[in-house]
Amino acid sequence: MSSLENRLNYTFKDKTLLETALTHSSYSKSITGDMPYNERLEFLGDAFFDAIIGEALFEAFPKEEEGFLSRIRATIVCETSLARHAMDLELGQYIRIGKGEEKTGGRERPSILADAMEAIMGAIYLDGGFEEVKKVVLTLFEDTLKDARNGKYIITDYKTALQEWLQSKGINQIKYVLTGEEGPDHNKTFFVSLEVQGKVLTDGSGKSKKQAEQKAAELALRRYDVI
Amino acid sequence: MSSLENRLNYTFKDKTLLETALTHSSYSKSITGDMPYNERLEFLGDAFFDAIIGEALFEAFPKEEEGFLSRIRATIVCETSLARHAMDLELGQYIRIGKGEEKTGGRERPSILADAMEAIMGAIYLDGGFEEVKKVVLTLFEDTLKDARNGKYIITDYKTALQEWLQSKGINQIKYVLTGEEGPDHNKTFFVSLEVQGKVLTDGSGKSKKQAEQKAAELALRRYDVI
Repeated sequence: MSSLENRLNYTFKDKTLLETALTHSSYSKSITGDMPYNERLEFLGDAFFDAIIGEALFEAFPKEEEGFLSRIRATIVCETSLARHAMDLELGQYIRIGKGEEKTGGRERPSILADAMEAIMGAIYLDGGFEEVKKVVLTLFEDTLKDARNGKYIITDYKTALQEWLQSKGINQIKYVLTGEEGPDHNKTFFVSLEVQGKVLTDGSGKSKKQAEQKAAELALRRYDVI
Repeated sequence: MSSLENRLNYTFKDKTLLETALTHSSYSKSITGDMPYNERLEFLGDAFFDAIIGEALFEAFPKEEEGFLSRIRATIVCETSLARHAMDLELGQYIRIGKGEEKTGGRERPSILADAMEAIMGAIYLDGGFEEVKKVVLTLFEDTLKDARNGKYIITDYKTALQEWLQSKGINQIKYVLTGEEGPDHNKTFFVSLEVQGKVLTDGSGKSKKQAEQKAAELALRRYDVI
Protein backbone atom coordinates (compact mmCIF):
# COMPACT_ATOMS: atom_id res chain seq x y z
CA MET A 1 0.00 0.00 0.00
CA SER A 2 2.86 2.39 0.57
CA SER A 3 3.69 2.15 -3.15
CA LEU A 4 0.15 3.37 -3.86
CA GLU A 5 0.67 6.20 -1.39
CA ASN A 6 3.78 7.14 -3.36
CA ARG A 7 1.84 7.17 -6.61
CA LEU A 8 -0.86 9.30 -4.98
CA ASN A 9 1.78 11.54 -3.43
CA TYR A 10 -0.16 11.34 -0.17
CA THR A 11 0.58 9.44 3.05
CA PHE A 12 -2.40 8.44 5.16
CA LYS A 13 -2.32 9.09 8.88
CA ASP A 14 -5.10 6.51 9.26
CA LYS A 15 -4.25 3.56 6.99
CA THR A 16 -7.62 1.88 7.60
CA LEU A 17 -9.24 4.67 5.57
CA LEU A 18 -7.15 3.72 2.54
CA GLU A 19 -7.88 0.03 3.16
CA THR A 20 -11.60 0.69 3.20
CA ALA A 21 -11.35 2.79 0.04
CA LEU A 22 -9.70 -0.20 -1.67
CA THR A 23 -12.26 -2.74 -0.45
CA HIS A 24 -15.03 -3.58 -2.89
CA SER A 25 -18.38 -4.70 -1.47
CA SER A 26 -17.90 -8.15 -3.06
CA TYR A 27 -14.84 -8.73 -0.87
CA SER A 28 -16.52 -7.51 2.29
CA LYS A 29 -19.53 -9.74 1.63
CA SER A 30 -17.33 -12.80 1.08
CA ILE A 31 -15.83 -12.40 4.58
CA THR A 32 -17.59 -13.28 7.84
CA GLY A 33 -18.55 -10.28 9.96
CA ASP A 34 -19.12 -6.83 8.52
CA MET A 35 -15.91 -5.40 7.14
CA PRO A 36 -16.46 -1.87 5.84
CA TYR A 37 -16.24 -1.41 2.08
CA ASN A 38 -15.78 1.59 -0.16
CA GLU A 39 -19.27 2.69 -1.20
CA ARG A 40 -19.77 5.27 1.53
CA LEU A 41 -16.35 6.80 0.86
CA GLU A 42 -17.19 6.85 -2.84
CA PHE A 43 -20.33 8.85 -2.04
CA LEU A 44 -18.16 11.35 -0.19
CA GLY A 45 -15.36 11.52 -2.76
CA ASP A 46 -17.64 11.91 -5.76
CA ALA A 47 -18.80 15.39 -4.70
CA PHE A 48 -15.23 16.53 -3.98
CA PHE A 49 -14.20 15.47 -7.48
CA ASP A 50 -17.01 17.62 -8.85
CA ALA A 51 -16.04 20.58 -6.68
CA ILE A 52 -12.31 20.43 -7.36
CA ILE A 53 -12.51 19.78 -11.10
CA GLY A 54 -15.29 22.38 -11.22
CA GLU A 55 -13.08 25.03 -9.66
CA ALA A 56 -10.18 24.19 -12.00
CA LEU A 57 -12.45 24.66 -15.02
CA PHE A 58 -13.99 27.82 -13.53
CA GLU A 59 -10.49 29.28 -13.41
CA ALA A 60 -9.35 27.87 -16.75
CA PHE A 61 -12.31 29.33 -18.64
CA PRO A 62 -13.03 32.73 -17.10
CA LYS A 63 -15.39 33.78 -19.89
CA GLU A 64 -17.43 30.62 -20.38
CA GLU A 65 -20.92 29.97 -19.06
CA GLU A 66 -22.16 27.34 -16.65
CA GLY A 67 -23.41 24.97 -19.37
CA PHE A 68 -20.00 24.87 -21.02
CA LEU A 69 -18.26 24.20 -17.70
CA SER A 70 -20.77 21.47 -16.77
CA ARG A 71 -20.32 19.66 -20.07
CA ILE A 72 -16.55 19.55 -19.81
CA ARG A 73 -16.66 18.52 -16.17
CA ALA A 74 -19.08 15.68 -16.98
CA THR A 75 -16.51 14.34 -19.45
CA ILE A 76 -13.65 14.55 -16.95
CA VAL A 77 -15.42 12.99 -13.98
CA CYS A 78 -17.31 10.28 -15.91
CA GLU A 79 -16.67 6.61 -15.19
CA THR A 80 -14.52 6.12 -18.28
CA SER A 81 -12.23 9.01 -17.41
CA LEU A 82 -11.93 8.09 -13.72
CA ALA A 83 -11.19 4.47 -14.65
CA ARG A 84 -8.48 5.62 -17.06
CA HIS A 85 -6.81 7.61 -14.31
CA ALA A 86 -7.18 4.61 -11.98
CA MET A 87 -5.32 2.50 -14.55
CA ASP A 88 -2.54 5.09 -14.70
CA LEU A 89 -2.16 4.47 -10.94
CA GLU A 90 -2.36 0.69 -11.55
CA LEU A 91 -5.10 0.74 -8.95
CA GLY A 92 -6.46 -2.67 -9.97
CA GLN A 93 -3.69 -4.53 -8.20
CA TYR A 94 -4.45 -2.84 -4.87
CA ILE A 95 -8.21 -3.42 -4.80
CA ARG A 96 -9.69 -6.20 -2.67
CA ILE A 97 -12.57 -7.88 -4.51
CA GLY A 98 -14.54 -11.10 -4.02
CA LYS A 99 -13.59 -14.31 -5.84
CA GLY A 100 -16.59 -14.12 -8.16
CA GLU A 101 -15.68 -10.60 -9.27
CA GLU A 102 -12.04 -11.61 -9.62
CA LYS A 103 -12.94 -14.44 -12.01
CA THR A 104 -15.03 -12.17 -14.24
CA GLY A 105 -12.34 -9.52 -14.60
CA GLY A 106 -13.56 -7.22 -11.80
CA ARG A 107 -10.08 -5.88 -11.22
CA GLU A 108 -10.15 -4.20 -14.64
CA ARG A 109 -13.84 -3.27 -14.61
CA PRO A 110 -14.23 0.51 -15.20
CA SER A 111 -17.07 0.87 -12.66
CA ILE A 112 -15.04 -0.80 -9.90
CA LEU A 113 -11.94 1.25 -10.72
CA ALA A 114 -13.84 4.53 -10.95
CA ASP A 115 -15.63 3.88 -7.65
CA ALA A 116 -12.31 3.13 -5.95
CA MET A 117 -10.85 6.38 -7.28
CA GLU A 118 -13.73 8.36 -5.79
CA ALA A 119 -13.47 6.40 -2.53
CA ILE A 120 -9.76 7.19 -2.24
CA MET A 121 -10.52 10.90 -2.60
CA GLY A 122 -13.22 10.60 0.09
CA ALA A 123 -10.66 8.86 2.31
CA ILE A 124 -8.02 11.55 1.74
CA TYR A 125 -10.60 14.22 2.57
CA LEU A 126 -11.43 12.54 5.89
CA ASP A 127 -7.77 11.90 6.63
CA GLY A 128 -6.22 15.20 5.60
CA GLY A 129 -8.97 17.73 4.80
CA PHE A 130 -9.98 19.65 1.72
CA GLU A 131 -6.68 21.21 0.70
CA GLU A 132 -4.96 17.81 0.68
CA VAL A 133 -7.56 16.11 -1.50
CA LYS A 134 -7.52 19.12 -3.82
CA LYS A 135 -3.76 18.81 -4.23
CA VAL A 136 -4.00 15.10 -5.03
CA VAL A 137 -6.84 15.48 -7.54
CA LEU A 138 -5.17 18.39 -9.33
CA THR A 139 -1.90 16.47 -9.61
CA LEU A 140 -3.53 13.27 -10.89
CA PHE A 141 -5.67 15.19 -13.38
CA GLU A 142 -2.97 17.66 -14.44
CA ASP A 143 -2.68 16.35 -18.01
CA THR A 144 -6.42 15.94 -18.38
CA LEU A 145 -6.99 19.52 -17.27
CA LYS A 146 -4.32 20.67 -19.69
CA ASP A 147 -6.18 18.83 -22.47
CA ALA A 148 -9.38 20.52 -21.31
CA ARG A 149 -7.78 23.96 -21.51
CA ASN A 150 -6.65 23.08 -25.03
CA GLY A 151 -10.25 22.39 -26.01
CA LYS A 152 -10.16 18.59 -26.10
CA TYR A 153 -13.47 18.01 -24.26
CA ILE A 154 -15.65 20.66 -25.85
CA ILE A 155 -18.85 19.13 -27.20
CA THR A 156 -19.47 20.38 -30.69
CA ASP A 157 -21.94 17.78 -31.85
CA TYR A 158 -25.08 17.93 -29.71
CA LYS A 159 -27.08 15.71 -32.09
CA THR A 160 -24.72 12.78 -31.61
CA ALA A 161 -24.51 13.41 -27.85
CA LEU A 162 -28.32 13.40 -27.61
CA GLN A 163 -28.68 10.31 -29.74
CA GLU A 164 -26.17 8.40 -27.63
CA TRP A 165 -27.80 9.47 -24.41
CA LEU A 166 -31.32 8.55 -25.56
CA GLN A 167 -30.09 5.20 -26.85
CA SER A 168 -28.56 4.48 -23.44
CA LYS A 169 -32.10 4.90 -22.06
CA GLY A 170 -33.52 2.54 -24.71
CA ILE A 171 -35.05 5.31 -26.85
CA ASN A 172 -34.33 5.19 -30.59
CA GLN A 173 -37.15 7.18 -32.19
CA ILE A 174 -35.55 10.57 -32.84
CA LYS A 175 -36.58 12.79 -35.73
CA TYR A 176 -35.79 16.36 -36.80
CA VAL A 177 -38.59 18.06 -38.75
CA LEU A 178 -38.15 21.31 -40.67
CA THR A 179 -41.09 23.49 -39.56
CA GLY A 180 -40.32 26.76 -41.32
CA GLU A 181 -37.96 29.14 -43.09
CA GLU A 182 -37.80 32.90 -42.78
CA GLY A 183 -35.99 35.76 -44.48
CA PRO A 184 -34.31 36.31 -47.86
CA ASP A 185 -32.20 33.62 -49.51
CA HIS A 186 -28.84 35.10 -48.47
CA ASN A 187 -29.89 35.42 -44.81
CA LYS A 188 -32.42 32.71 -44.08
CA THR A 189 -33.35 31.38 -40.65
CA PHE A 190 -34.45 27.76 -40.41
CA PHE A 191 -36.82 26.36 -37.78
CA VAL A 192 -36.71 22.74 -36.73
CA SER A 193 -38.67 20.58 -34.27
CA LEU A 194 -37.06 17.64 -32.53
CA GLU A 195 -39.46 14.74 -32.11
CA VAL A 196 -38.67 11.99 -29.64
CA GLN A 197 -40.97 8.96 -29.72
CA GLY A 198 -43.38 10.88 -31.92
CA LYS A 199 -43.70 13.90 -29.61
CA VAL A 200 -42.18 17.35 -30.12
CA LEU A 201 -39.59 17.80 -27.39
CA THR A 202 -37.78 20.99 -28.38
CA ASP A 203 -37.50 23.53 -31.21
CA GLY A 204 -34.38 25.07 -32.61
CA SER A 205 -33.53 27.79 -35.09
CA GLY A 206 -30.37 28.68 -36.96
CA LYS A 207 -28.76 29.94 -40.12
CA SER A 208 -28.76 26.43 -41.59
CA LYS A 209 -30.88 23.33 -41.09
CA LYS A 210 -27.95 21.67 -39.39
CA GLN A 211 -27.47 24.57 -36.99
CA ALA A 212 -31.17 24.54 -36.11
CA GLU A 213 -31.02 20.80 -35.44
CA GLN A 214 -27.95 21.18 -33.25
CA LYS A 215 -29.74 23.88 -31.27
CA ALA A 216 -32.82 21.68 -30.75
CA ALA A 217 -30.59 18.79 -29.63
CA GLU A 218 -28.69 21.06 -27.25
CA LEU A 219 -31.94 22.25 -25.67
CA ALA A 220 -33.09 18.64 -25.26
CA LEU A 221 -29.83 17.73 -23.50
CA ARG A 222 -30.39 20.65 -21.16
CA ARG A 223 -34.01 19.70 -20.59
CA TYR A 224 -32.89 16.27 -19.44
CA ASP A 225 -30.11 17.78 -17.30
CA VAL A 226 -27.47 15.88 -19.30
CA ILE A 227 -25.52 19.06 -19.89
CA MET B 1 -25.86 43.96 1.65
CA SER B 2 -24.25 44.06 5.08
CA SER B 3 -27.59 42.91 6.55
CA LEU B 4 -27.37 39.87 4.30
CA GLU B 5 -23.80 39.28 5.46
CA ASN B 6 -25.16 39.33 9.03
CA ARG B 7 -27.80 36.75 8.16
CA LEU B 8 -25.15 34.60 6.48
CA ASN B 9 -22.82 35.12 9.40
CA TYR B 10 -20.04 35.79 6.89
CA THR B 11 -18.32 39.02 5.87
CA PHE B 12 -16.90 39.18 2.37
CA LYS B 13 -13.40 40.51 1.85
CA ASP B 14 -14.29 41.05 -1.81
CA LYS B 15 -17.80 42.53 -1.93
CA THR B 16 -17.96 42.26 -5.72
CA LEU B 17 -18.16 38.47 -5.32
CA LEU B 18 -21.34 38.80 -3.28
CA GLU B 19 -22.70 41.34 -5.77
CA THR B 20 -22.12 38.94 -8.65
CA ALA B 21 -23.74 36.08 -6.69
CA LEU B 22 -26.84 38.26 -6.29
CA THR B 23 -27.00 39.31 -9.96
CA HIS B 24 -29.37 37.31 -12.13
CA SER B 25 -28.58 37.01 -15.83
CA SER B 26 -31.76 38.98 -16.67
CA TYR B 27 -30.35 42.02 -14.84
CA SER B 28 -26.95 41.74 -16.45
CA LYS B 29 -28.52 41.45 -19.89
CA SER B 30 -30.68 44.53 -19.34
CA ILE B 31 -27.58 46.66 -18.70
CA THR B 32 -25.17 47.90 -21.37
CA GLY B 33 -21.76 46.24 -21.27
CA ASP B 34 -21.15 42.83 -19.82
CA MET B 35 -21.74 42.86 -16.09
CA PRO B 36 -20.97 39.46 -14.60
CA TYR B 37 -23.96 37.48 -13.29
CA ASN B 38 -24.31 34.53 -10.96
CA GLU B 39 -24.42 31.43 -13.16
CA ARG B 40 -20.72 30.60 -13.03
CA LEU B 41 -20.67 31.02 -9.25
CA GLU B 42 -23.74 28.80 -9.06
CA PHE B 43 -21.84 26.10 -10.97
CA LEU B 44 -19.08 26.32 -8.39
CA GLY B 45 -21.33 26.45 -5.33
CA ASP B 46 -23.54 23.58 -6.38
CA ALA B 47 -20.76 21.01 -5.98
CA PHE B 48 -19.74 22.40 -2.59
CA PHE B 49 -23.32 22.05 -1.38
CA ASP B 50 -23.22 18.41 -2.41
CA ALA B 51 -19.87 17.83 -0.73
CA ILE B 52 -20.72 19.59 2.54
CA ILE B 53 -24.23 18.19 2.97
CA GLY B 54 -22.84 14.81 1.86
CA GLU B 55 -20.24 14.83 4.60
CA ALA B 56 -22.81 15.84 7.21
CA LEU B 57 -25.01 12.90 6.23
CA PHE B 58 -22.02 10.55 6.05
CA GLU B 59 -21.33 11.40 9.69
CA ALA B 60 -24.96 11.43 10.80
CA PHE B 61 -25.66 7.95 9.41
CA PRO B 62 -22.52 5.87 10.03
CA LYS B 63 -24.22 2.58 9.16
CA GLU B 64 -26.20 3.54 6.07
CA GLU B 65 -25.23 2.78 2.49
CA GLU B 66 -24.49 5.12 -0.37
CA GLY B 67 -27.99 4.87 -1.91
CA PHE B 68 -29.59 5.95 1.33
CA LEU B 69 -27.23 8.92 1.70
CA SER B 70 -27.73 9.98 -1.93
CA ARG B 71 -31.51 9.93 -1.63
CA ILE B 72 -31.53 12.11 1.47
CA ARG B 73 -28.99 14.50 0.02
CA ALA B 74 -31.04 14.87 -3.16
CA THR B 75 -33.97 16.01 -1.03
CA ILE B 76 -31.89 18.53 0.91
CA VAL B 77 -30.09 20.11 -2.05
CA CYS B 78 -33.05 20.14 -4.46
CA GLU B 79 -34.39 23.43 -5.81
CA THR B 80 -37.39 23.45 -3.48
CA SER B 81 -35.26 23.01 -0.39
CA LEU B 82 -32.64 25.55 -1.45
CA ALA B 83 -35.37 28.06 -2.29
CA ARG B 84 -36.97 27.53 1.12
CA HIS B 85 -33.66 28.30 2.82
CA ALA B 86 -33.23 31.32 0.56
CA MET B 87 -36.61 32.60 1.74
CA ASP B 88 -35.53 32.14 5.36
CA LEU B 89 -32.68 34.53 4.51
CA GLU B 90 -35.17 36.83 2.71
CA LEU B 91 -32.78 36.58 -0.22
CA GLY B 92 -35.36 37.81 -2.73
CA GLN B 93 -34.99 41.43 -1.66
CA TYR B 94 -31.22 41.40 -2.31
CA ILE B 95 -31.28 39.87 -5.80
CA ARG B 96 -30.83 42.06 -8.87
CA ILE B 97 -33.14 40.90 -11.67
CA GLY B 98 -34.29 42.39 -14.95
CA LYS B 99 -37.57 44.30 -15.25
CA GLY B 100 -39.29 41.50 -17.14
CA GLU B 101 -38.46 38.96 -14.45
CA GLU B 102 -39.47 41.42 -11.75
CA LYS B 103 -42.94 41.83 -13.29
CA THR B 104 -43.54 38.08 -13.48
CA GLY B 105 -42.59 37.43 -9.85
CA GLY B 106 -38.96 36.49 -10.46
CA ARG B 107 -37.93 37.63 -7.03
CA GLU B 108 -39.95 34.80 -5.48
CA ARG B 109 -39.24 32.21 -8.19
CA PRO B 110 -37.74 29.05 -6.62
CA SER B 111 -35.25 28.49 -9.44
CA ILE B 112 -33.86 32.05 -9.17
CA LEU B 113 -33.66 31.84 -5.37
CA ALA B 114 -32.04 28.39 -5.39
CA ASP B 115 -29.49 29.47 -8.00
CA ALA B 116 -28.59 32.54 -5.95
CA MET B 117 -28.11 30.36 -2.84
CA GLU B 118 -25.65 28.17 -4.73
CA ALA B 119 -23.92 31.21 -6.19
CA ILE B 120 -23.46 32.73 -2.73
CA MET B 121 -21.77 29.53 -1.56
CA GLY B 122 -19.51 29.59 -4.61
CA ALA B 123 -18.66 33.21 -3.80
CA ILE B 124 -17.88 32.41 -0.15
CA TYR B 125 -15.63 29.56 -1.29
CA LEU B 126 -13.66 31.88 -3.56
CA ASP B 127 -13.54 34.60 -0.93
CA GLY B 128 -12.76 32.58 2.18
CA GLY B 129 -11.99 28.98 1.24
CA PHE B 130 -13.55 25.62 1.99
CA GLU B 131 -13.78 25.77 5.78
CA GLU B 132 -15.65 29.08 5.63
CA VAL B 133 -18.26 27.90 3.15
CA LYS B 134 -18.67 24.69 5.14
CA LYS B 135 -19.37 26.68 8.30
CA VAL B 136 -21.98 28.84 6.54
CA VAL B 137 -23.76 25.88 4.89
CA LEU B 138 -23.86 23.85 8.11
CA THR B 139 -25.27 26.80 10.05
CA LEU B 140 -27.95 27.61 7.47
CA PHE B 141 -28.94 23.95 7.15
CA GLU B 142 -28.69 23.11 10.85
CA ASP B 143 -32.43 22.51 11.35
CA THR B 144 -32.76 20.66 8.05
CA LEU B 145 -29.89 18.34 8.99
CA LYS B 146 -31.50 17.79 12.38
CA ASP B 147 -34.72 16.81 10.60
CA ALA B 148 -32.69 14.48 8.38
CA ARG B 149 -31.13 12.79 11.40
CA ASN B 150 -34.64 12.34 12.79
CA GLY B 151 -35.65 10.47 9.65
CA LYS B 152 -37.71 13.18 7.97
CA TYR B 153 -36.30 12.71 4.46
CA ILE B 154 -36.14 8.94 4.23
CA ILE B 155 -37.93 7.75 1.08
CA THR B 156 -40.20 4.88 1.95
CA ASP B 157 -42.42 5.01 -1.10
CA TYR B 158 -40.38 4.32 -4.25
CA LYS B 159 -43.49 3.84 -6.40
CA THR B 160 -44.68 7.39 -5.76
CA ALA B 161 -41.16 8.77 -6.18
CA LEU B 162 -40.80 7.01 -9.55
CA GLN B 163 -44.22 8.11 -10.74
CA GLU B 164 -43.49 11.73 -9.88
CA TRP B 165 -40.11 11.63 -11.57
CA LEU B 166 -41.45 10.01 -14.76
CA GLN B 167 -44.34 12.48 -14.87
CA SER B 168 -41.85 15.33 -14.65
CA LYS B 169 -40.33 13.90 -17.86
CA GLY B 170 -43.76 13.70 -19.51
CA ILE B 171 -44.12 9.93 -19.10
CA ASN B 172 -47.41 8.66 -17.66
CA GLN B 173 -47.64 5.04 -18.85
CA ILE B 174 -46.48 3.05 -15.82
CA LYS B 175 -47.78 -0.44 -15.05
CA TYR B 176 -46.85 -3.16 -12.56
CA VAL B 177 -47.55 -6.70 -13.80
CA LEU B 178 -47.54 -9.79 -11.55
CA THR B 179 -45.35 -12.27 -13.41
CA GLY B 180 -45.21 -15.14 -10.90
CA GLU B 181 -45.55 -16.53 -7.36
CA GLU B 182 -43.34 -19.07 -5.67
CA GLY B 183 -43.40 -21.07 -2.43
CA PRO B 184 -46.05 -22.22 0.02
CA ASP B 185 -48.94 -19.96 1.04
CA HIS B 186 -47.42 -18.91 4.37
CA ASN B 187 -44.09 -17.98 2.77
CA LYS B 188 -44.75 -16.88 -0.80
CA THR B 189 -42.47 -14.78 -2.96
CA PHE B 190 -44.09 -12.54 -5.56
CA PHE B 191 -42.48 -11.46 -8.84
CA VAL B 192 -43.48 -8.26 -10.57
CA SER B 193 -42.42 -6.51 -13.79
CA LEU B 194 -42.51 -2.76 -14.10
CA GLU B 195 -43.58 -1.62 -17.55
CA VAL B 196 -42.91 1.94 -18.65
CA GLN B 197 -44.46 2.99 -21.95
CA GLY B 198 -45.28 -0.65 -22.68
CA LYS B 199 -41.74 -1.95 -22.18
CA VAL B 200 -40.43 -3.95 -19.22
CA LEU B 201 -37.94 -1.73 -17.42
CA THR B 202 -37.18 -3.64 -14.20
CA ASP B 203 -38.31 -6.68 -12.19
CA GLY B 204 -38.83 -6.92 -8.47
CA SER B 205 -39.58 -9.65 -5.98
CA GLY B 206 -40.80 -9.61 -2.40
CA LYS B 207 -42.93 -11.20 0.27
CA SER B 208 -46.00 -9.30 -0.93
CA LYS B 209 -47.09 -7.85 -4.26
CA LYS B 210 -46.64 -4.38 -2.81
CA GLN B 211 -43.08 -5.15 -1.67
CA ALA B 212 -42.20 -6.55 -5.12
CA GLU B 213 -43.57 -3.41 -6.80
CA GLN B 214 -41.62 -1.14 -4.46
CA LYS B 215 -38.47 -3.10 -5.29
CA ALA B 216 -39.04 -2.78 -9.05
CA ALA B 217 -39.66 0.97 -8.66
CA GLU B 218 -36.53 1.36 -6.54
CA LEU B 219 -34.44 -0.40 -9.20
CA ALA B 220 -35.91 1.87 -11.88
CA LEU B 221 -35.01 4.98 -9.86
CA ARG B 222 -31.46 3.65 -9.58
CA ARG B 223 -31.34 2.81 -13.28
CA TYR B 224 -32.18 6.42 -14.09
CA ASP B 225 -29.68 7.70 -11.49
CA VAL B 226 -32.45 9.45 -9.61
CA ILE B 227 -31.41 7.82 -6.35
